[in-house]
Parts: sequence; C-alpha cells; structure tokens
Amino acid sequence: MATKKFLLNENDIPTAWYNIVADMVNKPLPPLNPATKQPLNPTDLEPIFVRELIDQELSQERWIDIPDEVRELYKIWRPTPLVRATGLEKALDTPAHIYFKNEGVSPVGSHKLNSALPQAYYNKKQGIKHLTTETGAGQWGAALSFACSVFGLDLDVFMVKVSYNQKPYRRIMMQTWGAQVVASPSDLTEAGRKILARDSHNSGSLGIAISEAVEKAVLDPGARYSLGSVLNHVILHQTVAGLEAEKQMEMAGEYPDVVIGCFGGGSNFSGITFPFLRHKLSEGKDIRVIAAEPESCPKLSRGKFEYDFGDTVGLTPLLPMYTLGHDFQPADIHAGGLRYHGAGTIVSQLRKDGYIDVDDIPQLESFEAGRLFAKTEGTIPAPESTHAIASVIRIANKAKEEGKPCTILFNLSGHGLIDMSAYDQFLAGKMKNYSLSDKEIAISANALEHLVP
Amino acid sequence: MATKKFLLNENDIPTAWYNIVADMVNKPLPPLNPATKQPLNPTDLEPIFVRELIDQELSQERWIDIPDEVRELYKIWRPTPLVRATGLEKALDTPAHIYFKNEGVSPVGSHKLNSALPQAYYNKKQGIKHLTTETGAGQWGAALSFACSVFGLDLDVFMVKVSYNQKPYRRIMMQTWGAQVVASPSDLTEAGRKILARDSHNSGSLGIAISEAVEKAVLDPGARYSLGSVLNHVILHQTVAGLEAEKQMEMAGEYPDVVIGCFGGGSNFSGITFPFLRHKLSEGKDIRVIAAEPESCPKLSRGKFEYDFGDTVGLTPLLPMYTLGHDFQPADIHAGGLRYHGAGTIVSQLRKDGYIDVDDIPQLESFEAGRLFAKTEGTIPAPESTHAIASVIRIANKAKEEGKPCTILFNLSGHGLIDMSAYDQFLAGKMKNYSLSDKEIAISANALEHLVP
Repeated sequence: MATKKFLLNENDIPTAWYNIVADMVNKPLPPLNPATKQPLNPTDLEPIFVRELIDQELSQERWIDIPDEVRELYKIWRPTPLVRATGLEKALDTPAHIYFKNEGVSPVGSHKLNSALPQAYYNKKQGIKHLTTETGAGQWGAALSFACSVFGLDLDVFMVKVSYNQKPYRRIMMQTWGAQVVASPSDLTEAGRKILARDSHNSGSLGIAISEAVEKAVLDPGARYSLGSVLNHVILHQTVAGLEAEKQMEMAGEYPDVVIGCFGGGSNFSGITFPFLRHKLSEGKDIRVIAAEPESCPKLSRGKFEYDFGDTVGLTPLLPMYTLGHDFQPADIHAGGLRYHGAGTIVSQLRKDGYIDVDDIPQLESFEAGRLFAKTEGTIPAPESTHAIASVIRIANKAKEEGKPCTILFNLSGHGLIDMSAYDQFLAGKMKNYSLSDKEIAISANALEHLVP
Repeated sequence: MATKKFLLNENDIPTAWYNIVADMVNKPLPPLNPATKQPLNPTDLEPIFVRELIDQELSQERWIDIPDEVRELYKIWRPTPLVRATGLEKALDTPAHIYFKNEGVSPVGSHKLNSALPQAYYNKKQGIKHLTTETGAGQWGAALSFACSVFGLDLDVFMVKVSYNQKPYRRIMMQTWGAQVVASPSDLTEAGRKILARDSHNSGSLGIAISEAVEKAVLDPGARYSLGSVLNHVILHQTVAGLEAEKQMEMAGEYPDVVIGCFGGGSNFSGITFPFLRHKLSEGKDIRVIAAEPESCPKLSRGKFEYDFGDTVGLTPLLPMYTLGHDFQPADIHAGGLRYHGAGTIVSQLRKDGYIDVDDIPQLESFEAGRLFAKTEGTIPAPESTHAIASVIRIANKAKEEGKPCTILFNLSGHGLIDMSAYDQFLAGKMKNYSLSDKEIAISANALEHLVP
C-alpha cells in the first residue's frame, strides 16, 4: 500500500531557524522612525520588544539556533505530518501530486504556536512578567495564551471586536489557558478611546488592536508587546515548518514545482515557502511560490510598495511593505487572519523582485475548496487555509487540462473547528464575495507618503 | 533531550483487531430476542446490520483482519502519537510517569473514526446506500459523517436535542461532510412522535435517538443502522488504539501499571485497555484498568447486572449489561458521550468477573483536571476525556503521597474545541455537580426484568 503520510522523528526537528535575509539579492529597506523618517535605531524598539527578538528582527545571519527549551516544547506536537492528499487528487482527477504540511495538529490548532513559544521564552528570559498582543480570528491569541501559560507570563489579548462577538469559542480557549481577553477597540487605551469617540460602534480591525496592545505594553516597563505575523523574527520562527517539509518531500521522493501558502501578514506563507525559495535564491532552482490572498484584501496584487504603519493609529515604526494603506478597512470575510492591510517587509521585497506570485481568491471559491478538502481528506480547514487550497485546485485543474503532472505543496495553517459558523453560512447559501473597484483601492492608498527611494 | 512523543510508522498500524472474547474466562451471555426471551438468532439482526458486522459481533476469533481499504484510510491520521505528559507530571510534582494516547488528532477530533470507517466500508461492500445513526455530543455522528462521505453513503443522524441546540458547531461539521442531521426526538419516526406526544419539550437522550435511528433503518431495505459504542464489533475496531499504544510503551521502555479510559458505552475505554488486559487474562500480568465514569451516570459502580434494552423505547435486543435502567434520564452534564444508561456486554462481564475497576468522577473535578491538562500539555480535552484525566490525577497524587513511582497510561479520546461553552461555564463558576441518591438509582432499575441466570 502506498504511503499517505511522511513522518519525522523528534530528532529531525530543526536545530536552527532559516533567515532568508542572508540570501536575498536586495536586502529589505530599513524600518523608519516615523518622527524623523530616518532608519530606526534598534534601541528605539526596546520599549516594545526584548533584545533577543530585536536582534533577530535585524539579523542577516542565515541560521539562528533554536534554544533547547523551545525545541523541547516544539516536541509537544512537532514534527508535524506531511500528507499526500490522495483523496483530493482523486476527487479532482488530476495528474498533479498534492502534498500538505499539516500545521493544524498543534494543540492550539494552527501554525501560530511556532512563534508564540519562542517569543514567550525570550521575554521570560529577559525577566518580563507581562505580554500584550492583538488577535483577529484568534489563532495568534490562542497560541500566545498557551505559550504564556507554559512560561508563567500574564497576557492581555486585544481581540478584534467582530471576532470577539462572532467567535466566542476562541475567546474561551484563551481564557482556559489563562489569558485576559478584551474586545478591541476598548476603553482601556487612549487609542481605543479615540476610535470609540469617533465611532462608538466600530467593530475593530487588526490595525486598531495592534495600536491598543502596543500602547498598553510601552506604558509598563515590565511588559512587552508580541506580534504574530508580519515581522522578520516571527517569519523566522515559522521556517521550522518549511524546513521539516523539505526533509519530508525528500522522503516522498519528490520536489515541489509549486509551494503555496495563504497570505495575511506572511507568517504561514513565509514559514512554508522560504526554505524552498532559498534554493531558488542561492542555486537558481526552478520553483514557483504562490501567496493566496483574499480578493477582498489584495495587498500583494493591488497594493502599493511604500512605507506604511503596521497599525491603524500610527504607533509603530514605518515599514516598507506592499500595503493598501493603514486605514484600509477590510470587508468582514471569515478569514479573519487575512484581514490585514500590509505585507511583511521581507515578503514585500521578494515580491517586488519577482520571486513571489499571487492568487487572489474570492470568498466563495475558498469555501468550495475547503469543503471539498473536508469531504476528501477529513480535516475541515480554517477559512484562511481554504485560500491556499483554492489556489492548489487551480493549479491541479490546469495540470489536468494540459495533461501535465506537477507536484504541489501547501501549508494547511490550521483547522476550522472554531469557524463552523462560517461553514454554516456557506452551506446555507448566505455567503458572498467582496471584490474591490480600483477606486476603492486607491482611496486608502492615497494617504501613503512616498518615502521609498 | 528526553523524548516526549513516541511515533510509529504507517507500517506499524495493526493488520488485525483484537477480540478479547477469545481470552475471556466467562464468555458474555448471549443477547436475547425481547419477544421470546430466547438467545437471538444472528439473522434476526440482518435488518439492522450487514452480515460482516453481525459476524464480528458474535465472533470468538482472537484476531480479525483489518481490510486493506480500511487500513489505507486509517493512514489519514494513524498511527496516533503516544505522548509523555511531562508538563502535567511537573505541575503535579508526582513520581508517576504519565503517558497518553492522543486519539484527538483524528480529522474528526476523536477516536470514533476508528469504527466509523470500517462500518461504512462493510455497509458499502454489501451494497447498502444509506445509514442511520444517533449521536449525543456529536463525536460519533461527526466520525460517521466523514466516513460516509468517503464511501459515498447517505447518512441520517438523529442528534440528541439538547446537544443539537447547545453544540451547533458539531451539527455544522456533520453537514459539511454531507450528512442530514435532525434533532431527536423528531416527528420523523413513530418512536419520536410517541415521546413528543407525551412530552413535547423532551430534550432527548441517546436511548431515544437510538430508537429513532433503528426504526428508520429497519423500514428501508437499502438502509442499515450504525452504532458508535456498546456493541462488540465497535469495541473490536477501537482496539487499534491500544494495540498501537502497546508498541509505543515498548518504545518508551515502560509497561503501564494502570490503564485508564473514560467510560460511556465502552468504545474508548475498551479500545485502550483490552490489548493490555489481554495479558492479564492470558498470562496473569499484574495490570490495573480503570473506567472513569461520571458520578451522575454511574452504571458500572452502582448499576445492576441485568438484561436490558440498548434504547429507551425497547426496539433493540436485550443485552446483558451493567445498567441504570433503559429509562434512566441522565443529568445534563457536558460530557454528552458519557450520558448512557448501560455498559457494553463484554465490559459488563469483565467488570462482573473483577477485571475492571471504576472511578466515579464529579463534573467539577473533571473540568479542573481538564483545565490543568490544557495549561500544561496544550490540548483542551473533550469533556468526556477530562474524566480519564481526573482519574489519572487521583493515581498520580496517591503516588506522590506514598512516594511510590508508577506508570499510568490513558486515552485522550478527543479534543474539546467544540465544547468550549462548557469550559466557559466552568471558568465562570457556573458549573455544578450532580450526585445521585440510592433512591434515585433504584427507581429506574426497578423496571428491569431478572433474566440473568
């Protein structure tokens, strides 16, 4: 009988994360101090992040050792399986071989724990007692809640209000692990109060929640802020998934022609693709990587490459990114983790340099793909992950049309068990697409300053 | 660094299920035809089950081959990990070594898929087009929904009404995989209509839902009924978990002193314990097995060993079981899968013969244990599984008191992500215990006929 899963041993968990900056032809542009518009001094970040994470954020070293304590905790669920999606292949009647890395088997249900644990670890090591963070759909907040429970850190989670109300189960998960969760915008911060004063019914966004969490952290010297995507050190931690997948593809005796990840801020996408993209950058290997983003939040395909804030209020450094503008208000799609206006700095530079392709996926196409995956492979995918699956299906169908086999790898970033109300809407025929006119895209981008040289 | 998980390869998935009947000193008493009170003729069961499942139900063979097609599907998630619960051990400061078999990693979130797939397979093989079943909390219904999707079978699930209303996410899961789900009691069956006529607000029970599902199946020659616990063939399929765990304990270089499973009808408990109990039966090996049941549904500790119906209305054969009486109405505890009046025939005989110990767990103790497990090991356990964890903690604390190391193995039957509202109540201090007086226990048992010789 054929092998369905490719499993590694705990010894095969990588001992170092891969930092793609070392192999980039054009290095990312530096973050800027928003007041001076000059490149940021690393110490400027110290009220926000601990020193080891700042070092990682700015590092150009190719490999960064994973601390033993973190690697020990990775063993709770890592290595994750690489699975041949034979059921899906059969349903599509495609000559393509489809593999997925199942990051949904983590105890929190997604890939986010890969970065939550090291972030909590480095904060604990520096004597920090208290973290703050934001969360959209709640995948990141859930991961950091468990990580803080392990290291005995207090955690405040600012959860985007629309998700707080729609996804009570994820709020309860965070509370079960011990976090304090508040709906954002809240009246606990100046940023939140300012927004509520303008619009008392504001349903929140990741950008607003980041403003609140950053503000709360910088006002307390024993606290720091923690982010689940976008930043270089987060993406670095996520490469553990792609590095494992590389070994597992070798066990399968194949090498992917295409590697696909859904795209919000870049953590899941970069984690699976960068270890493969490395060989394109360093050896010219012929491999295609695709970021699957929602058509309602198309920063990579239709955004501008400019300096922009990471949050809505403008508390973060200016980052060079493909962005729809930091006051872009994304539609209420169910893939809450993809509702973010900008792409991380590294991904943005690689996109600009032609290394990354993009698929814009309408919401209905994503859920059709997700349901087919559930019916054939069992796991009900997270709304975010369904975007990657839709992109996979496009490639697999093309392979069928052309009668040309190809090998596809994608990251199943998480399961969708907390998002069943979205599937309920889909099954009831009540879900819709949100496409954007060029005019709508232009409005929020107009506010951007032109600081890219 | 120490090993945390013990992982097998797909080749290590067992090739045969273990049938403990072969090794029992006293074989189970036969099921009786309720009309004649005489032992059942196997053909009496043919309107309800397909022939291969009836053969398994009555088999005394020690090993029954797992069909290749089923074993291939087991590869979707099997072998499951055996995990050393080092985080929990540390929190308890116990000399005990605690291992758990993580059946929650299945795509449906529990061990139930171990039997759903072979049941769907054998039905498909005999040309059946349509299955009916009942489900309480929804773990079984979810598993059979995916299994029917794989084999292209129609499925009607009668879901206990209280769960249908409290756990909409599990209903949606079943619908995502393609099943039709109705709240039971329903007006689709004579059994349901009869109960609704007496009590239009009846919130349902597993016993009632079984009556409805059996009735619907027997009226359609192309349909059969499917059950997720209690019966011998279901328990047989579940031994795949314990057989794997045996190999994995060997990898860990230990042998369990105690094996623990939560107890509803017996599928999870028997699956993990019978492959170990085998060595006690056949070689006199010194091993203790414990069934962790809710104190509010204490059939093994306080029920009677008598012939009783498997359902409320009285459509099934009479089975020899420890039972609280088939009209026992269990309290609305959150562990829906444990709200059943009787124990399977095999377990009942083994309990009678002194091979099985019982722990009765109050609801609050179970959730305290579940939360500690979540905070230390990550996975939020299903309310059913928290009973096993509570029992583990009792043993581990005793080991600490006595300063005597011991090795404990338990089955984590599933995760609790669909049951977060229960954790919400627990965290808010709104959960309560339900203990039963001897008088309450006696009332429903009074209706039992005394047919055990």
